[in-house]
Amino acid sequence: MSESFKRVVLAYSGGLDTSVILKWLQVTYGCEVVTFTADLGQGEELEPARAKAELMGIRPEHIFIDDLREEFVRDFVFPMMRANARYEGDYLLGTSIARPLISKRLVEIAKEVGADAVAHGATGKGNDQVRFELSAYALNPDIKVIAPWREWDLTSRTALIDFAEKNQIPVPKDKRGESPFSTDANLLHTSSEGKVLENPWDETPDYVYSRTVNPEDAPDTPEYITIDFERGDGVALNGQAMSPATLLAALNDLGRKHGIGRLDLVENRFVGMKSRGMYETPGGEIYARAHRGIESITLDRGAAHLKDELMPKYAELIYNGFWFAPEREMLQAAIDLSQEKVSGTVRLKLYKGNASVVGRKSPNSLYSERHVTFEDDAGAYDQKDAAGFIKLNALRLKLLAKRDR
Amino acid sequence: MSESFKRVVLAYSGGLDTSVILKWLQVTYGCEVVTFTADLGQGEELEPARAKAELMGIRPEHIFIDDLREEFVRDFVFPMMRANARYEGDYLLGTSIARPLISKRLVEIAKEVGADAVAHGATGKGNDQVRFELSAYALNPDIKVIAPWREWDLTSRTALIDFAEKNQIPVPKDKRGESPFSTDANLLHTSSEGKVLENPWDETPDYVYSRTVNPEDAPDTPEYITIDFERGDGVALNGQAMSPATLLAALNDLGRKHGIGRLDLVENRFVGMKSRGMYETPGGEIYARAHRGIESITLDRGAAHLKDELMPKYAELIYNGFWFAPEREMLQAAIDLSQEKVSGTVRLKLYKGNASVVGRKSPNSLYSERHVTFEDDAGAYDQKDAAGFIKLNALRLKLLAKRDR
Amino acid sequence: MSESFKRVVLAYSGGLDTSVILKWLQVTYGCEVVTFTADLGQGEELEPARAKAELMGIRPEHIFIDDLREEFVRDFVFPMMRANARYEGDYLLGTSIARPLISKRLVEIAKEVGADAVAHGATGKGNDQVRFELSAYALNPDIKVIAPWREWDLTSRTALIDFAEKNQIPVPKDKRGESPFSTDANLLHTSSEGKVLENPWDETPDYVYSRTVNPEDAPDTPEYITIDFERGDGVALNGQAMSPATLLAALNDLGRKHGIGRLDLVENRFVGMKSRGMYETPGGEIYARAHRGIESITLDRGAAHLKDELMPKYAELIYNGFWFAPEREMLQAAIDLSQEKVSGTVRLKLYKGNASVVGRKSPNSLYSERHVTFEDDAGAYDQKDAAGFIKLNALRLKLLAKRDR
Amino acid sequence: MSESFKRVVLAYSGGLDTSVILKWLQVTYGCEVVTFTADLGQGEELEPARAKAELMGIRPEHIFIDDLREEFVRDFVFPMMRANARYEGDYLLGTSIARPLISKRLVEIAKEVGADAVAHGATGKGNDQVRFELSAYALNPDIKVIAPWREWDLTSRTALIDFAEKNQIPVPKDKRGESPFSTDANLLHTSSEGKVLENPWDETPDYVYSRTVNPEDAPDTPEYITIDFERGDGVALNGQAMSPATLLAALNDLGRKHGIGRLDLVENRFVGMKSRGMYETPGGEIYARAHRGIESITLDRGAAHLKDELMPKYAELIYNGFWFAPEREMLQAAIDLSQEKVSGTVRLKLYKGNASVVGRKSPNSLYSERHVTFEDDAGAYDQKDAAGFIKLNALRLKLLAKRDR
Repeated sequence: MSESFKRVVLAYSGGLDTSVILKWLQVTYGCEVVTFTADLGQGEELEPARAKAELMGIRPEHIFIDDLREEFVRDFVFPMMRANARYEGDYLLGTSIARPLISKRLVEIAKEVGADAVAHGATGKGNDQVRFELSAYALNPDIKVIAPWREWDLTSRTALIDFAEKNQIPVPKDKRGESPFSTDANLLHTSSEGKVLENPWDETPDYVYSRTVNPEDAPDTPEYITIDFERGDGVALNGQAMSPATLLAALNDLGRKHGIGRLDLVENRFVGMKSRGMYETPGGEIYARAHRGIESITLDRGAAHLKDELMPKYAELIYNGFWFAPEREMLQAAIDLSQEKVSGTVRLKLYKGNASVVGRKSPNSLYSERHVTFEDDAGAYDQKDAAGFIKLNALRLKLLAKRDR
Repeated sequence: MSESFKRVVLAYSGGLDTSVILKWLQVTYGCEVVTFTADLGQGEELEPARAKAELMGIRPEHIFIDDLREEFVRDFVFPMMRANARYEGDYLLGTSIARPLISKRLVEIAKEVGADAVAHGATGKGNDQVRFELSAYALNPDIKVIAPWREWDLTSRTALIDFAEKNQIPVPKDKRGESPFSTDANLLHTSSEGKVLENPWDETPDYVYSRTVNPEDAPDTPEYITIDFERGDGVALNGQAMSPATLLAALNDLGRKHGIGRLDLVENRFVGMKSRGMYETPGGEIYARAHRGIESITLDRGAAHLKDELMPKYAELIYNGFWFAPEREMLQAAIDLSQEKVSGTVRLKLYKGNASVVGRKSPNSLYSERHVTFEDDAGAYDQKDAAGFIKLNALRLKLLAKRDR
Repeated sequence: MSESFKRVVLAYSGGLDTSVILKWLQVTYGCEVVTFTADLGQGEELEPARAKAELMGIRPEHIFIDDLREEFVRDFVFPMMRANARYEGDYLLGTSIARPLISKRLVEIAKEVGADAVAHGATGKGNDQVRFELSAYALNPDIKVIAPWREWDLTSRTALIDFAEKNQIPVPKDKRGESPFSTDANLLHTSSEGKVLENPWDETPDYVYSRTVNPEDAPDTPEYITIDFERGDGVALNGQAMSPATLLAALNDLGRKHGIGRLDLVENRFVGMKSRGMYETPGGEIYARAHRGIESITLDRGAAHLKDELMPKYAELIYNGFWFAPEREMLQAAIDLSQEKVSGTVRLKLYKGNASVVGRKSPNSLYSERHVTFEDDAGAYDQKDAAGFIKLNALRLKLLAKRDR
Repeated sequence: MSESFKRVVLAYSGGLDTSVILKWLQVTYGCEVVTFTADLGQGEELEPARAKAELMGIRPEHIFIDDLREEFVRDFVFPMMRANARYEGDYLLGTSIARPLISKRLVEIAKEVGADAVAHGATGKGNDQVRFELSAYALNPDIKVIAPWREWDLTSRTALIDFAEKNQIPVPKDKRGESPFSTDANLLHTSSEGKVLENPWDETPDYVYSRTVNPEDAPDTPEYITIDFERGDGVALNGQAMSPATLLAALNDLGRKHGIGRLDLVENRFVGMKSRGMYETPGGEIYARAHRGIESITLDRGAAHLKDELMPKYAELIYNGFWFAPEREMLQAAIDLSQEKVSGTVRLKLYKGNASVVGRKSPNSLYSERHVTFEDDAGAYDQKDAAGFIKLNALRLKLLAKRDR
């Protein structure tokens, strides 16, 4: 706290915690606070955040509320989905991918309003602080970042609520006690962690899930859908053209209904510890499977395998907060080049937690029935070629075996 | 056919196709045929193969029928599962992993009986010819391999059946017409391809599935199970110790019942074309998820991420037939080293196609509630360390941003 | 030879071997031959090739002689150098990188003249056949490729010369006997292999080298030069702007004089055997070192390390003939993106086989004396940040050590 | 400095800086200091360190002076050389590879003497602090590490010397002024950085080099040597068996004489900045080239290419200080497996900065003159196999070209 700030842009949700931060910034730094509240599809009303900010003395022109849903899906979620990115084999990176966009806007607003710092409400134990800050520094190397959770002494729930009450911040009844777990949400997913989830042997209680029905309660009849892709991105659901955010929202509705996209995971944080998280990514899970489906007939093997080899690193970069790093951009350039012909239609069956690709077609299909058929192939493929192919692939193994026997 | 052979070991199933091959080898090369029939858990009686072989004049001491189920799971399936191998993101390599073992026995038997060649019934369009032959050459560089499908002129079903009838090979009624698809099976999976599956837009008809119930017909109540692991391998189901093959068989029963492990895939063959396959890997799918589950609490991040980066290449090597290549063995050495502490118990919920990890525990757990907790952590972790961590991770990005603005 | 061709474009050097091929094509296929002779900087007169072709009855409008030097360096050598590509740690891919360009022109000319096939003079044991043919097929999937060395029966030198004499092809005196080794040359390198080089224990005799002086005979005084780069490509030598081919030619002169770029290598061919080659890449070696030099101050660590990780695969793709494959293009897209700021000047010292970077500067330098200095850095870097950085990097190792003790 | 320590093991060179640290630890923490001085082949007398330590009141049984040369080369340098590790394409990791061994002994001694902390003299800007500390924590998660350079206020040369004089630490005359650069040395290399080397455009002055003659002053006559390898490690020079450290020392003498192994590099530090270093690795450079030479005839292509792909990550792990991390051990397991047959003899020519492999032979050679010969190969290789090999490798490219035209 040796530094001093005149004006600070805060990523502000309107909730108790970021309201406390807002006040704490005013009190601690004597600075002017600018609030930024993003609609990333988290499914909450944003206008109450404006009211609260005003109540805490923020100048109206310093209250920024932006609908970023289309930008989020178009420029962040979809590019990531082109890579088939899954961290540690499973996690669709729903929280990770939202952070760089929030930082981008924080930095832009800081420039607009002449702020010298930005602030966020992520704790010192998690990945989000890293993601916010790496993105901010990459976009403006002179920006200062304030992370109150790493600085203040409000380390217990009681201390936090005391501070709120001393500072006339309304404390909703249900926030008085400890929340049984912590969540993050946006158009791609809801994550939950902490408290009741901390023992990785205990099954996640049903009340933790907010975004999907229990597969057991999902319809007993499967539902079939189609998704159309153009150049690697989804463009239509059941033949109806949709914008990126609209498509993802519609898939979320379908996923919710059929109990799709629940994931209970113990993962490795960038800061060095393991944590257990519960993720619900209903639309994302459907979309991810569909994307692999359309790639399977339109992508060359060499391209597909290179993508698979690069994916773990790509996912790790996003998870660790390096969205705006040159190596992520290099990988993206390679991936995007591969998507030029990834167009066509995928048909999926949704049923009680399952989203299964059951058909795929494309004007750009590389699948050749003529080659693969068990029937007469009219000379498309000469089986005798396989003998030479195998012989030369075996040559080094033979030489090795001769030496080593 | 310019070569001549005295004695040939044939991978013999007892079915029509390999019976025709048996006879064709006798007729074409005038050679003595030795038959080898492996029990890999494909679920067929093997004694009829002995009877047929005897009928076709094979000397009793030249009829080999081996139960390889334990060796298959212990030395092939489990090592592969340690790598979390999935080809092209999904395929659990059920056919690929069986071929090297069959070749190993073919080559061993050839040595025992003094044969100068081995023969297999794989076609010239597929991957299996490559897998059989690369393995055979790697194990005995002087062995000859005969692949009748690449050599003969029995290229239509009619020609094949004519040949059978001319040579007194009984043709079962249901083999007279074209089979609607082609299958391969072993303890790990059943694969189906060809004919009715050739159009990748058409949904796989239900009659193609033989190994799992339709999820819609699976029980309406979830079933919970536990799998115990030791050093990366499964050792017990629901607390009951089992041998590798017994465990996989028991998981197959569970998977079948709950409709788990169906996969409809368009994949890239090593010989250069795309094909569409339908796989059922009921026990393998459950096992693979459980293995990732136990790794998630016992494997260090560095080890886990390295494994994820190496996996696509490892899976490709197995798919392409390079099980006995030095680079597969090098990767295996790295993977196996990582598994020393991968012991503990995973709890899964099986329900209508879903096999979800819901709990994991281990005496070797690296998960530290003390570190991750939202509560007071008694000094386990100093949140202020994160500031320095982020600063130094950001330094290069800042220098970059300063240069590029 | 069951196929028939009307018109065939031959990659024709004008030498004895390709003259024999020319005639053999005419005799064997009764086809019209179109000759294509490329100037890739191999340092031979090309007009004699025209005269010989005319003598063998090729129609003047069917004799193509193209100067491809600038295209070769600009579109093939430089892009490859951006990747710092070295096959198996050392080989600068001089032969490999020329083949796709020759194939490209063969296919273009085939289209122009309405030919139905192309032909090349590479043998069935080497990599070049693969490179020629993969490129040709990738550019025109319907083209036919004739590889006489894999088809004909002229398998001994005597048979070849007999054929030449019977067909009135002049045989130069020095071609009557066996040549003591075989060479390939272009603006990037000269390679030699075979015969006297076949025993990898024997030192390469001095007479094999044609492109560089023996370092022992090079000047006793070092020579300093500078190379300027823009966006990853060389643009000037000693401050004088030069086209790509001119620059490489000038560096070749310097490298020749100072004995730079000799390489004696046992390498692994794509077709499965090891071979021993002797390469001289005088200008290429200087250029490659300079390129790494300019990258060292202009490339971010993340970009640089990603490039290093991708390089072996990239080099292997070029070596194996996959220049026109999508995965090479994807890698190129990633690499090229990284080169946008790779501009500046490198200073090198050339001395008796050594080309050492001794200085580098750039308007885009990321090297910050302010950060790195042992002196007071005016707050650019807070050493205390390192403590947190190390603590969090160590956390997983500590958790591991606690478990495993 | 809120912590308190009873007994601290210091990595002590006997020089001015670590003597100041010794005293500072005594003064600041009031703790007992245990000194550890390692002979890693840095070429300095170690007994003076004992005398100085005694002078500063260290109890004789708390002065540890160990000759670690054989362990250093056998267990650290050679395993690393098996990987052909070079950081950022060039750097042979001479400093990086010594740090884990020093930490290992620090931690062992701490256990022996019941110390609660270890201390080192690395600054807060460099990589060495990271390497020391990660290794220490990985070996003993409860150990405390004191890094005085990050803690104290002796941030200028004057302050340091004042402290020395106030505390009766003798200050050698040549240490009064600023040293013109900073060095580190061990049996593998000498590194120099800082001060006169800080401008990467300026050529390194000749007086910086201490370990090699200027190539211009090296003998005018080349010298030929042989190195014998067994299972990937050097075992003899010119036919004379030598221990690891003896062999490396003898190669150092040869390299010094012939001016081999100088490297002027701008590299990327783990802590985020670029630095310019000058390295002399005379014996290491010769050894590294020889190792690649023996691998070139004894290693299968698959193994060799996998090693090349893994190398950048392996080198980065060592550079960043993760020697004792599981992922380094996994990579080592893969690499070591590949070395089982890497035995034989390499012949090199040493001449004015060049160390060139000119011959290699091995009882385990995979090089087959019979296969590679331009002469009649007695049927070892059927050139017609290449046609099928190429056809199937081309198939996916053809399908792609058909689609995309």
